[in-house]
Amino acid sequence: MKVSAIANSNIALVKYWGKRDKEFMLPFNGSISMTVNDMFTHTTVEFDKKYTEDILIVNGKGLKPGEEDYDEYVGAFMKVVRQLTGNQTKIKIVSKNNYPTAAGLASSASGFAALSLAVSKAFGMPLNEKALSILARRGSGSASRSISAGFVEWHRGEKKDGSDSFAEQIAPPEHWPEFRMIAVITSKKEKKVKSRAGMAQTVATCPFYPKWVETVPIDLDAIRKGIKEKNFTLVGTTAEHNCLKMHATMIATRPAIIYWNPATMEVIHSIMDWRDEGLESYFTIDAGPQVKVLCMEKDSKELAKRLGALKGVDEIIVTRPGPGARFTDEHLF
Amino acid sequence: MKVSAIANSNIALVKYWGKRDKEFMLPFNGSISMTVNDMFTHTTVEFDKKYTEDILIVNGKGLKPGEEDYDEYVGAFMKVVRQLTGNQTKIKIVSKNNYPTAAGLASSASGFAALSLAVSKAFGMPLNEKALSILARRGSGSASRSISAGFVEWHRGEKKDGSDSFAEQIAPPEHWPEFRMIAVITSKKEKKVKSRAGMAQTVATCPFYPKWVETVPIDLDAIRKGIKEKNFTLVGTTAEHNCLKMHATMIATRPAIIYWNPATMEVIHSIMDWRDEGLESYFTIDAGPQVKVLCMEKDSKELAKRLGALKGVDEIIVTRPGPGARFTDEHLF
Repeated sequence: MKVSAIANSNIALVKYWGKRDKEFMLPFNGSISMTVNDMFTHTTVEFDKKYTEDILIVNGKGLKPGEEDYDEYVGAFMKVVRQLTGNQTKIKIVSKNNYPTAAGLASSASGFAALSLAVSKAFGMPLNEKALSILARRGSGSASRSISAGFVEWHRGEKKDGSDSFAEQIAPPEHWPEFRMIAVITSKKEKKVKSRAGMAQTVATCPFYPKWVETVPIDLDAIRKGIKEKNFTLVGTTAEHNCLKMHATMIATRPAIIYWNPATMEVIHSIMDWRDEGLESYFTIDAGPQVKVLCMEKDSKELAKRLGALKGVDEIIVTRPGPGARFTDEHLF
Repeated sequence: MKVSAIANSNIALVKYWGKRDKEFMLPFNGSISMTVNDMFTHTTVEFDKKYTEDILIVNGKGLKPGEEDYDEYVGAFMKVVRQLTGNQTKIKIVSKNNYPTAAGLASSASGFAALSLAVSKAFGMPLNEKALSILARRGSGSASRSISAGFVEWHRGEKKDGSDSFAEQIAPPEHWPEFRMIAVITSKKEKKVKSRAGMAQTVATCPFYPKWVETVPIDLDAIRKGIKEKNFTLVGTTAEHNCLKMHATMIATRPAIIYWNPATMEVIHSIMDWRDEGLESYFTIDAGPQVKVLCMEKDSKELAKRLGALKGVDEIIVTRPGPGARFTDEHLF
């Protein structure tokens, strides 16, 4: 039996940084994101007794049980799936991104969202959006937000078992079709410090971390209001500040985590300068050197042109609010 | 009557960021610096009844009473001097730096230290090192540290009138002659946000600022110990963390203050990479894009060569612990 699913990446407007529970992947704070239209993971799962162990192929590269990159991510996730279903059948997973992997473009978000949808069917476990979001969260926190379309909020939750820590839609893509995100790729190298290790280091050693947790709810309220009222200035200024506040916690971590590269700085300062001149856009940056520029449709062409001409910029992807995770008939093998 | 004085710049190993009192220039936290050997300000003061208003020439550029750049800095300082001495005689000040001004190389530190020494004599007010440090502080906080030679601590103090907020020597230059600082100039443009405005903005809006104030004493203890024991690793790791923690408070300020440019990032990441390979050095950065690299004499040649070859690096100045403020017979006019 073969099942294929596609899930799109999402870009956080209020960031997730830090787990209060590593087993259940429960965050210290809620977050809000936009599921994007043009960056996705396509995953095919084959559920067959002929396999004696799980097989995983990500972007053409095989990963096996026993290898750290397998065990800590897909391996741990499949353990959860088998606990839930009681089914020990081995599977083959083939997954492919249409954008660079592990460089701060939320590849684990789209990856685990697509995998969650595919395995839920393969293991005969039909789940609604909320339950899928909770399952995806067990693979990667931010994956919980890639199940839904458009603008999405992942609730922190209070319960120990994580049953109230799920994502749900704030507004569908049609609510704000003029919203644009321009992903500015400044490096295709895999990042040195993975998000998971980075956030654990920050929680453990950054003196500012408790204040981050304390102030995120203010940003969540502002972004939720901004999305509902389509107030771009409110969404942009809040998202930019929230991103800088998160990077400040990383920078003040010991040892320091600095995801920015020279081109990241070039883009940041250009955005600020252009804004001073009246071209309104804001930036947000995840755990990597890429910059995601937020703007309205009317300015996206001019911004894409200018951003593409900056020193150190490799590639530009212009995208908009996009669909949630869904099945597809196109199988990868 | 003409008096000339020279004072050297200093580079903070534990930074000063934020005032608890703007009139008396009292800091929220203590700081530790090294007075450097090769970057200084030379100032000549002429005290003469022929002047009907103060004349100031900094690096060949005239500034007059009524201009913001005069009134808020030298103008405010001269008001303090006249209150203390009761002498209203006007003066001519000619000041020159042997390094780029106002781009995060502590030009106000060496400038106000040299001016304090020169005016103390011109106004017939002989002051000891502690009193000079207190006077220099009224011009610019960090100037209090440029009065003394070598490694210097500026005590926060507790009193309202600032009489216990002064700098004093921890160790003379001879204590650690192998210590080197390499100033890496990445931009000679004057910075957009001056330190004074930047720190006021951070104190007012950064949610992390109180934690900065709370944690600085830990860094002060470590650096003081490191200097006394000549433990370079302890001094370097603490100074680098302290600098990043300060920049984190700037980055999380609203509106954000980002002093780093692309070359700053190039230097930061290179230092970290070279350190991983065994070449031990650390960086510190003030309110500007320049990077100051800390190392031992044995590695300074290799580091200067590598740093000079990095993209975006304009100039390299290698220096060591240097002398305090002193008089000179060479007048500027």
